[in-house]
Amino acid sequence: MAYTPSLARLIQLLAKLPGIGEKTAARLAFFVLKSEGSYAQDLATAIADVKASTRFCSQCHGLTEDDPCPICDDSERDQTVLCVVEEPSDVIAVERTHGFRGRYHVLHGAISPLDGRGPEQLKITELINRLEPGEVREIVVATNPTVEGEATAVYLARLIKPLGVEVTRIAHGIPVGGNLEYADQVTIGRAIEGRRTM
Amino acid sequence: MAYTPSLARLIQLLAKLPGIGEKTAARLAFFVLKSEGSYAQDLATAIADVKASTRFCSQCHGLTEDDPCPICDDSERDQTVLCVVEEPSDVIAVERTHGFRGRYHVLHGAISPLDGRGPEQLKITELINRLEPGEVREIVVATNPTVEGEATAVYLARLIKPLGVEVTRIAHGIPVGGNLEYADQVTIGRAIEGRRTM
Repeated sequence: MAYTPSLARLIQLLAKLPGIGEKTAARLAFFVLKSEGSYAQDLATAIADVKASTRFCSQCHGLTEDDPCPICDDSERDQTVLCVVEEPSDVIAVERTHGFRGRYHVLHGAISPLDGRGPEQLKITELINRLEPGEVREIVVATNPTVEGEATAVYLARLIKPLGVEVTRIAHGIPVGGNLEYADQVTIGRAIEGRRTM
Repeated sequence: MAYTPSLARLIQLLAKLPGIGEKTAARLAFFVLKSEGSYAQDLATAIADVKASTRFCSQCHGLTEDDPCPICDDSERDQTVLCVVEEPSDVIAVERTHGFRGRYHVLHGAISPLDGRGPEQLKITELINRLEPGEVREIVVATNPTVEGEATAVYLARLIKPLGVEVTRIAHGIPVGGNLEYADQVTIGRAIEGRRTM
């Protein structure tokens, strides 16, 4: 004997979560088992609910419970700037900075020929359609500074510039609080390339 | 805006799990949200099930779905030896060694006056009752080598020895694969104290 069947099943499912190994899964399962009050039931309900009640905004393709999402629906937001990101979680990351007052467009991935993901798998046609009314004047490409993210940025720039919309790219450089000594060469190279007058 | 309400709720609940901070909780929540097939529903069901279908064995007080548990119910097991542990998870830890063929008794804690936990809060009366029929000849005390676990071991020895039952304690020493240099003084002291002729 080892675990009871229901405990073994829970551990097996928890171990599929990213970064959770078998030992951690067992610890979490015992915590759930020993939890008091309605915690286990609340957690079960929240897990089932999150998939049921979350969908994608028909405009920006970000996560939302209402369509259009609160950001797209906010008339105080700058309609002339669109920030293009790879994933819905990136919207939250940018929102946290409180430094961007435009709207978003979520691509749901980046161009990655190795994974068989071309531009047609991303929400790029949807992005072009949003430029149609002529309101948007700038696209801030905030895809990740990875090979795939850069390829996507270059692709978007080539596609969108001819439409008379300015395409900008977020800056790459040394992270704030970072250390030159520990930064990789490519990052330092980009930081020097992107230097600004003080 | 940040997360959608259902996502925020899930992150809040996941962040209550031991060793899971807010960032990890968000990563797990996004994984659940993006998971394909029935994973989210399966996980929700497993969490709700584990509490509903798991109970304590009326004999050893370990976790089980059937009463008595498979170990107490196994007639091949040595009835004369009882291994006393603090928690149900300790039963699984000892079982994994495949080195013990007796039965178990789970105390559900250790004596800890600072936390207001005395012997009467533990399954000690139940343990004494199991010795009544006179079948058990040895009690292996496998409580943790902590102050509380040691205090519990000493308490049990004093209580049970007069009943004519042998009380043994698991060995303390350098872990296999461990290193003298990194072991603490108390452990090394115990290892020397418990030395055996080769």
